Amino acid sequence: MSELPSSIDITEVGPRDGLQNQEEVISTAAKIAFVESLASSGLKRIEATAFVSPRWVPQLADADEVMACVKRRPDVEYSAVVPNMMGWDRAHSAKVDCVAVLASASETFSLRNTNADIEASFTRIEPVIAAAVAAGVKVRGYVSCAIKCPFEGEVPVAAVREVSARLLSLGVDELSLADTIGAAEPSDIGPLLEAMGDLIAPADVILHLHDTRGTALACVMEAMKLGVRRFDAAAGGLGGCPYAPGAPGNLATEQLVALAEREGVTTGVDLELLTAATSLIKGVRHPRL
Amino acid sequence: MSELPSSIDITEVGPRDGLQNQEEVISTAAKIAFVESLASSGLKRIEATAFVSPRWVPQLADADEVMACVKRRPDVEYSAVVPNMMGWDRAHSAKVDCVAVLASASETFSLRNTNADIEASFTRIEPVIAAAVAAGVKVRGYVSCAIKCPFEGEVPVAAVREVSARLLSLGVDELSLADTIGAAEPSDIGPLLEAMGDLIAPADVILHLHDTRGTALACVMEAMKLGVRRFDAAAGGLGGCPYAPGAPGNLATEQLVALAEREGVTTGVDLELLTAATSLIKGVRHPRL
Repeated sequence: MSELPSSIDITEVGPRDGLQNQEEVISTAAKIAFVESLASSGLKRIEATAFVSPRWVPQLADADEVMACVKRRPDVEYSAVVPNMMGWDRAHSAKVDCVAVLASASETFSLRNTNADIEASFTRIEPVIAAAVAAGVKVRGYVSCAIKCPFEGEVPVAAVREVSARLLSLGVDELSLADTIGAAEPSDIGPLLEAMGDLIAPADVILHLHDTRGTALACVMEAMKLGVRRFDAAAGGLGGCPYAPGAPGNLATEQLVALAEREGVTTGVDLELLTAATSLIKGVRHPRL
Repeated sequence: MSELPSSIDITEVGPRDGLQNQEEVISTAAKIAFVESLASSGLKRIEATAFVSPRWVPQLADADEVMACVKRRPDVEYSAVVPNMMGWDRAHSAKVDCVAVLASASETFSLRNTNADIEASFTRIEPVIAAAVAAGVKVRGYVSCAIKCPFEGEVPVAAVREVSARLLSLGVDELSLADTIGAAEPSDIGPLLEAMGDLIAPADVILHLHDTRGTALACVMEAMKLGVRRFDAAAGGLGGCPYAPGAPGNLATEQLVALAEREGVTTGVDLELLTAATSLIKGVRHPRL
């Protein structure tokens, strides 16, 4: 049996990747309290919002206010998704610690999700990365459809590597490989990490899993054994389809923390406080622990 | 990395462990069609019902009719849970291929669930096992709370071993170690198998998992690596609490099959036909695949 890491780092993406899919409108005050409570639970990296057009994601239209009002902790990194230069201006004014840009490993998903092919999407995010690097703001690069694409099916690891290489060469500080639709099986993890080869070590890769098919924790176990120690997760498993109550969304931070701690892997997160944070979001069913 | 087995055997427990928890009344015809469709999908072992008092489990009051009407396949084993001699008489008349008896590794759970402590529960099931052995009918022994107890918390592996040894010495043909509340973490599997020691080899142990906390498939992976190749599962993940729609119940057969096949482990089950079988049960949300 391979060794598990002694600890893992979790980036909490519930306030962004989770809430953007919630049908029920969440008040700005609730979002602020949510982010603050997540930080209280011991999470050190929180993707707090997205500076996207309110026309596309009405739920996150209050990004500026959320970032302005959250009482920040000095030891917590607050990040936000930024799709373009308009978003960058807002995010920079809001003094986010890190901006996250999205690129897709699948042409079709890129077109359907952002109305731009991969090349065009880089035209949008390159100036964002350059501006952030110039301003000394950290940058996270997401690679969506890093396992499968809802339209194309299997995504070749070479395509994931290519987009990753491009993001890294542009200067992103970290790379989150996202199983956007929750299709990952444990055996997908090894080949994905191998394909990254000299680009980035398993210990530096961030895995962003959804739990659509119940495989997320099995993939986490496999990944930890292969040296991965950074994961994204969303409190309450937020991010499920709003039309299917109880449908699994992102890997639930609670379940990740419970598994890791039980397996002797430190997370620094207090489960009770995390559960209290999740309670602030209406309509979320608590994952059982 | 340890090798995975080339194939696994699945016992489908949806018609029993699943349906007994469904609030919505399922017609006898639907149950019969469900069992027949499950067999059509390639499942070779099906726990079709339980011969329990209708006062306790009204949903399964039609056990006799279900067993009488199901068109059986010669290569499929049809089993039923039998709690006592009254149940045995009915099950024997119904010509089940295998009777399943339940014992608990936790005193408190035994008392609360069956109104009998472990000793008293053996007083009930011993004559059932003896009658089945005498009649040449196969016997499955369940050990409930084989990982944790909802009342007592951690269940010592020694307690699981003790109940298992007793069941085996009475002549049960197979042993299903049940994580009744879905509390198992991957690291629980090794110690459990080790504790069984010379009693029963990992290849003969049956693991009965629930997916309460999203850990079932991670436990399956771990178990397969440790030599386990028999699992219980319920079509559609049936068995969740009826008051929490979408709440995970038993490990979903669909998700077990999808994971195994993707990992190169043969199950003999056709996922499309299995999905069609699940469709026969009203109110069940299909697990995503």
